Amino acid sequence: MGQRIIRKKKKKAGAAPGTLSYEGDLASGEKVQARVIVYSKETMREEAFAAFARKKEPASVAWVCVEGVHEVAVVESLGKIFSLHPLVLEDILNTNQRPKWEDYGEYLYIVLRMLDYNAQALQVESRQLSLILGPDFVVSLQEENKEVFAEVRKRLATHRRIRFMGADYLAYALMDAVVDHYFSLLEHLGDAVERLEEELISQPVPETLARIHHFRREVLLLRKAVWPLRELLSTLIRDESPLISQDTRIYLRDVHDHAIHVLDTVETLRDLLTGMLDLYLSSTSNRMNEIMKMLTLFATIFMPLTFIAGVYGMNFENMPELTWPWGYYAALLFMLGVGGGLYLYFRKKKWL
Amino acid sequence: MGQRIIRKKKKKAGAAPGTLSYEGDLASGEKVQARVIVYSKETMREEAFAAFARKKEPASVAWVCVEGVHEVAVVESLGKIFSLHPLVLEDILNTNQRPKWEDYGEYLYIVLRMLDYNAQALQVESRQLSLILGPDFVVSLQEENKEVFAEVRKRLATHRRIRFMGADYLAYALMDAVVDHYFSLLEHLGDAVERLEEELISQPVPETLARIHHFRREVLLLRKAVWPLRELLSTLIRDESPLISQDTRIYLRDVHDHAIHVLDTVETLRDLLTGMLDLYLSSTSNRMNEIMKMLTLFATIFMPLTFIAGVYGMNFENMPELTWPWGYYAALLFMLGVGGGLYLYFRKKKWL
Amino acid sequence: MGQRIIRKKKKKAGAAPGTLSYEGDLASGEKVQARVIVYSKETMREEAFAAFARKKEPASVAWVCVEGVHEVAVVESLGKIFSLHPLVLEDILNTNQRPKWEDYGEYLYIVLRMLDYNAQALQVESRQLSLILGPDFVVSLQEENKEVFAEVRKRLATHRRIRFMGADYLAYALMDAVVDHYFSLLEHLGDAVERLEEELISQPVPETLARIHHFRREVLLLRKAVWPLRELLSTLIRDESPLISQDTRIYLRDVHDHAIHVLDTVETLRDLLTGMLDLYLSSTSNRMNEIMKMLTLFATIFMPLTFIAGVYGMNFENMPELTWPWGYYAALLFMLGVGGGLYLYFRKKKWL
Amino acid sequence: MGQRIIRKKKKKAGAAPGTLSYEGDLASGEKVQARVIVYSKETMREEAFAAFARKKEPASVAWVCVEGVHEVAVVESLGKIFSLHPLVLEDILNTNQRPKWEDYGEYLYIVLRMLDYNAQALQVESRQLSLILGPDFVVSLQEENKEVFAEVRKRLATHRRIRFMGADYLAYALMDAVVDHYFSLLEHLGDAVERLEEELISQPVPETLARIHHFRREVLLLRKAVWPLRELLSTLIRDESPLISQDTRIYLRDVHDHAIHVLDTVETLRDLLTGMLDLYLSSTSNRMNEIMKMLTLFATIFMPLTFIAGVYGMNFENMPELTWPWGYYAALLFMLGVGGGLYLYFRKKKWL
Amino acid sequence: MGQRIIRKKKKKAGAAPGTLSYEGDLASGEKVQARVIVYSKETMREEAFAAFARKKEPASVAWVCVEGVHEVAVVESLGKIFSLHPLVLEDILNTNQRPKWEDYGEYLYIVLRMLDYNAQALQVESRQLSLILGPDFVVSLQEENKEVFAEVRKRLATHRRIRFMGADYLAYALMDAVVDHYFSLLEHLGDAVERLEEELISQPVPETLARIHHFRREVLLLRKAVWPLRELLSTLIRDESPLISQDTRIYLRDVHDHAIHVLDTVETLRDLLTGMLDLYLSSTSNRMNEIMKMLTLFATIFMPLTFIAGVYGMNFENMPELTWPWGYYAALLFMLGVGGGLYLYFRKKKWL
Repeated sequence: MGQRIIRKKKKKAGAAPGTLSYEGDLASGEKVQARVIVYSKETMREEAFAAFARKKEPASVAWVCVEGVHEVAVVESLGKIFSLHPLVLEDILNTNQRPKWEDYGEYLYIVLRMLDYNAQALQVESRQLSLILGPDFVVSLQEENKEVFAEVRKRLATHRRIRFMGADYLAYALMDAVVDHYFSLLEHLGDAVERLEEELISQPVPETLARIHHFRREVLLLRKAVWPLRELLSTLIRDESPLISQDTRIYLRDVHDHAIHVLDTVETLRDLLTGMLDLYLSSTSNRMNEIMKMLTLFATIFMPLTFIAGVYGMNFENMPELTWPWGYYAALLFMLGVGGGLYLYFRKKKWL
Repeated sequence: MGQRIIRKKKKKAGAAPGTLSYEGDLASGEKVQARVIVYSKETMREEAFAAFARKKEPASVAWVCVEGVHEVAVVESLGKIFSLHPLVLEDILNTNQRPKWEDYGEYLYIVLRMLDYNAQALQVESRQLSLILGPDFVVSLQEENKEVFAEVRKRLATHRRIRFMGADYLAYALMDAVVDHYFSLLEHLGDAVERLEEELISQPVPETLARIHHFRREVLLLRKAVWPLRELLSTLIRDESPLISQDTRIYLRDVHDHAIHVLDTVETLRDLLTGMLDLYLSSTSNRMNEIMKMLTLFATIFMPLTFIAGVYGMNFENMPELTWPWGYYAALLFMLGVGGGLYLYFRKKKWL
Repeated sequence: MGQRIIRKKKKKAGAAPGTLSYEGDLASGEKVQARVIVYSKETMREEAFAAFARKKEPASVAWVCVEGVHEVAVVESLGKIFSLHPLVLEDILNTNQRPKWEDYGEYLYIVLRMLDYNAQALQVESRQLSLILGPDFVVSLQEENKEVFAEVRKRLATHRRIRFMGADYLAYALMDAVVDHYFSLLEHLGDAVERLEEELISQPVPETLARIHHFRREVLLLRKAVWPLRELLSTLIRDESPLISQDTRIYLRDVHDHAIHVLDTVETLRDLLTGMLDLYLSSTSNRMNEIMKMLTLFATIFMPLTFIAGVYGMNFENMPELTWPWGYYAALLFMLGVGGGLYLYFRKKKWL
Repeated sequence: MGQRIIRKKKKKAGAAPGTLSYEGDLASGEKVQARVIVYSKETMREEAFAAFARKKEPASVAWVCVEGVHEVAVVESLGKIFSLHPLVLEDILNTNQRPKWEDYGEYLYIVLRMLDYNAQALQVESRQLSLILGPDFVVSLQEENKEVFAEVRKRLATHRRIRFMGADYLAYALMDAVVDHYFSLLEHLGDAVERLEEELISQPVPETLARIHHFRREVLLLRKAVWPLRELLSTLIRDESPLISQDTRIYLRDVHDHAIHVLDTVETLRDLLTGMLDLYLSSTSNRMNEIMKMLTLFATIFMPLTFIAGVYGMNFENMPELTWPWGYYAALLFMLGVGGGLYLYFRKKKWL
Repeated sequence: MGQRIIRKKKKKAGAAPGTLSYEGDLASGEKVQARVIVYSKETMREEAFAAFARKKEPASVAWVCVEGVHEVAVVESLGKIFSLHPLVLEDILNTNQRPKWEDYGEYLYIVLRMLDYNAQALQVESRQLSLILGPDFVVSLQEENKEVFAEVRKRLATHRRIRFMGADYLAYALMDAVVDHYFSLLEHLGDAVERLEEELISQPVPETLARIHHFRREVLLLRKAVWPLRELLSTLIRDESPLISQDTRIYLRDVHDHAIHVLDTVETLRDLLTGMLDLYLSSTSNRMNEIMKMLTLFATIFMPLTFIAGVYGMNFENMPELTWPWGYYAALLFMLGVGGGLYLYFRKKKWL
């Protein structure tokens, strides 16, 4: 049946904001992984999260990278270290947020959706990514253990350039990695839809319809996850927050461009699927016509013939034709004439 | 038939604003319940509404919680106590308002809809909630006796934090409770729609169609009730009214987020139901095709056979085949050949 | 056929603005009624229009209430008394304006549509109301003699409050009466649509379709008449014109609210009618399926049987079955078997 | 086939702006007519265009009225006389512009479409009108020789008032004449659509469908021509150009109103035609049902009867019923019973 | 199958911006052509790109015209010569950008799509054009070797006027050439659609449907490529960048106009194709009706006749009609009466 439309909430309506509990559905037994990477122009080191304490190191950036948010304790300790607002903590744990960003003065809170295409279930999986961008730190919290940021870690280790920039550039690099990953999702989805389109044109089967419906549903939910990204990025670029430098804004503009591209493609997929449904219905209707024509051909030709045969099967005593020696052959010829005449008539009328 | 589209108005067109009469349909015989809760950082007490008088108590907040608005006298006395504008009193009683807020200088008047899913009638019930937010008081008027605010009352009694904040925070807490409650409504509705979707794919019946129509209607009316919420909250957050503090605005932003989430889900439900209607129509059309094929198979095969039998049932005297000893068997064989030939032909043409 | 889409214009294209002639279709023989009501806090009196002259009476308001605009002379004398712009006079007479307001400095010109539901013709009737609001006068010109303002006149006579307010409040009261009247129209229309919906679900007939079309057309034209009201009122409220006081703006906000409510309801009706059309088509399609199934059942069962009977009606000399003493009964049994078998097969396949 | 969607361009892509050639399709052999009317409060005279030279005459306005733009020389000489920008000359000749206006400092360039209803071809004809408004001159260039401005010329000759106003008022008068002319187009189109609607409801034929399609196409292209007018006029009114006086702006507001009215009507026609298509499809579907019912009635009643007759036409030797003296009558009665029973059964089931 | 919806990306998600590789699908073996044209009022010369170095020549403009972007080295050397931002280089190579422009202070980066109609594949081909506009240079990079700019080169060689203007005018001339070229694309597409429309009305075949779907898909993708142009140009015109002079803005306004015209036409094509799909479906449905009527005519007339013949083919001993001398003729007459009666009845009912 594809994704759920509405995910259940566990929190009671009316409860105080700040009552923390994980609201997602990925609370596996696995331990939450939390790494801290501290880097500056010269050095880069990895620390254990447990031992991490925020200290002032000039010109260095700390990246706390958390994979899994189902352990409330980890989120709470993050809240204490970076003095986060209770609503931020709540939103981190309630992993059904739409993409958004909020300015809390000392830091920005950014929510993105990480999207993956599950090729088995033919369905889009959507996980939450929370980013907290401070003057000298970035906290990233993924709902699931994903390899999306591996490339960024490698660049931190090998390229010096990324280490010359501030925390805002790191946040950009993470957002860019997430949005770039959408393209691979779209490639898979686009391929699947184009395969479906070919099937539709060459040999539609009843299952084609259910598949079109399935993809329309997926694209519907995908669109819901991607749509807010456009405004998120355009407001983030225009905003005056001192946490993001002018140089980084130019890079964010590039992410914005990619997001619009993604959105365009999603809209195109949607329109295409609508067109495919129309096409399916029309070709169904065409086939119906073909079948009806066949039926009509047989019925309109054989009904008169059967009637004629029935007439000469009547048992009246006085039926002169029956005693004619060539009567039988005349009747057969007559029937042939009627049948052939009707056939030619229909041909001429282009009904058949 | 679901909800009424238009509720009757009792007031005469052209009557003066301020002529008060209850315009809803819940004028049960039950007594209107009105409670007053006065709290400050240190204390909290409940007063009888009859005995309530507005007095200046520094740093304390009074919450007048009215359940039922069908007694005009109660509303009128509220109007006197808090010097409310006649239009506010009229809007409280005319419980068919769309969500909105209005600034009357000394207080804000906010209208929300409380939504509940009636699982028996499979239908959304929409009741009006009026909030009046003053510098040191909040008046809440529910059309019906609902338990939505029980949790807020409990927090007032047990948590100190909510008592440290002003009247604006209490108003936020009430609005948050209302909007949070929408999610439970959406869960029920979403479940019902997904059950319908499964029924549609596995075994659609004619009633499925009426049910899709029913839910489209409900979602239509639900959307009408939720749509204005978005603008209500975004303008309330941007507004400069001194009655709402900056801290509370951050919390309202959270409610705004939830409202957009609700709206997104409603839109998704709508699109999904439209898709389901398309799917229903298409699968109906598919079944029609199946039936037509069956009919065509039988008709096109048996009509020629019946015709042949009719020919040999004719009573011509001179029909040599009839006297052949193996004529009958030859005729049967011929029929078998024609029938089988047609069957194979249709098979090959993939018509059957 | 319902309302005309386009009303004929009599004025020649290119003619000078200010060439006055009545462009509506209500030029009955009846005399135009024009009344002048002059009121202040203390007094209220009615004057004959013929004798009316604009004079400065401090703190008093003159309401010129004209019923019928088919007499150009009346409109022209109004133009002279209040020095109205030629375009205003033209718009008063050309009663096919959309709702709008225009600021002419010394006065505002406001056009509204008065809507009524003609229950005989099942159709919405739309008449023009022109309001001219000056500092101490209001002119109202209705195209038809309607009782909509009776209530306002009564309030002027009995309530002192309305007499304490200025001309702007009177204009508000008139606009409020017009918009309030829309609700009664919507009630009638909504009732008719809901009756149609019930008919549609219980027992649709071919006429149902024509009725759905009729109501869609009415709602289309109704929407056209109501839609501009929203912007009219919101710009009127935001405008800085000194002719409307702050107090009256609060009341206008209330009318604005009602207008949005009306518009919402019209949109809901529109969506509902679209949904009903879908439902009609689907249930038609369902019935077709039922009928086709019945046909298929009979055809596929009786065609083989008739064929068998035909076989044994053949006149071959050598047909051993015919001479068997129990041949006839065996044939009947065989037919019963074939018929029953087919029936059970279809049952099992759920085709029937 | 109605109008062409895209008109061919003759100019080569990449050619310099200012390479002048007529791009329309009306290059008839007829001579271009160019008249110059110079008027002031006191006098009015007509000059030959060939002899015309721009000279300063205080308080007088020159109207150069050109009918036909297929002679490049005329347009070039206009360009020299009034020192027009090369792009203006190009746009005058390329008569497929959408309505727009452009401020060139010393003059405004305004493009409108002149629309006519060709009752023979049942199609809308769209021609370009270019207006150039300077401080003391107006140049109007029509693509075709139309009588639309005859009324304006008559007013210039007879009414003094129009001669008291400046060039901007003349430009207004010309635009007003063009937009007013739209109403006559809409009347014809509206009549044609309403006739079609009546035909649709009383007796739809297959051609009705093609006619609906034809009108939808016309309205589509009409909408494209009218849509930009709305913004054209609203920006022209708000603009600060000193070439248009405050007084004239009030008159332009009136044209704006008319344009919105036209647009509303076009939208209504579009919605109506969509509704008519739905209705056509539905009534087609209804008729299909009627026919299917008829077929089903005959088939389901006569198939069993024919089978029974076939049974008693079998040639078994031992068929006791055949020898009963009243067997024949019993068989007829039995058939009557079966047929009547089926008929009553269908009646009861409301299938027929 | 027409164009791909999504083009594959080769770059890894998360890779650093500035890692350059060509992402298009035109990496043919052909050498990239790069020409440099340096011109001033007096002179114009062509240089080899390899030898090109940016030097200050007062009042002269350098146009670097690159055809093919599949050689990263060329793009990199451009980046060095004009000190371009890494993101610009990346966007030049990633040739799947949507139209946009970006201000990098010292230069503007503009992306357009060059569109061509491939008449063989009946499909729109979209290639990227990057423009970099500096104070005294323009760089144009086409993905493919196209003749679109030939006309501009000729004007540079022959017309002096274009050499009097700055680099901004050259950029305008290039953009104008690209947008003008769209019209030829639209002419071809419009012709193809109109041919399809004629085929649809005169003699629709099942392939017509697939062709309508094909064109809808093309128009969908075309729209995606053209849509952003509108905003691109309107923001470019309004922008304050000193790189574009006021004079050139007037020319850009003209390109803007053309872009809107293109967009309008694309929308019209889209609406028209939707209308054609409706028409196809409706005419299919009409034909179905025709066929059904034919079937019903034959079935309802011949079934009763065959039944009558069957009755007189029964073998009852006592059937008095059979022995009447004129029984046979009476039966034939009776059948003729029944058949004719039914035919007239259907005629009267207008079913046939």
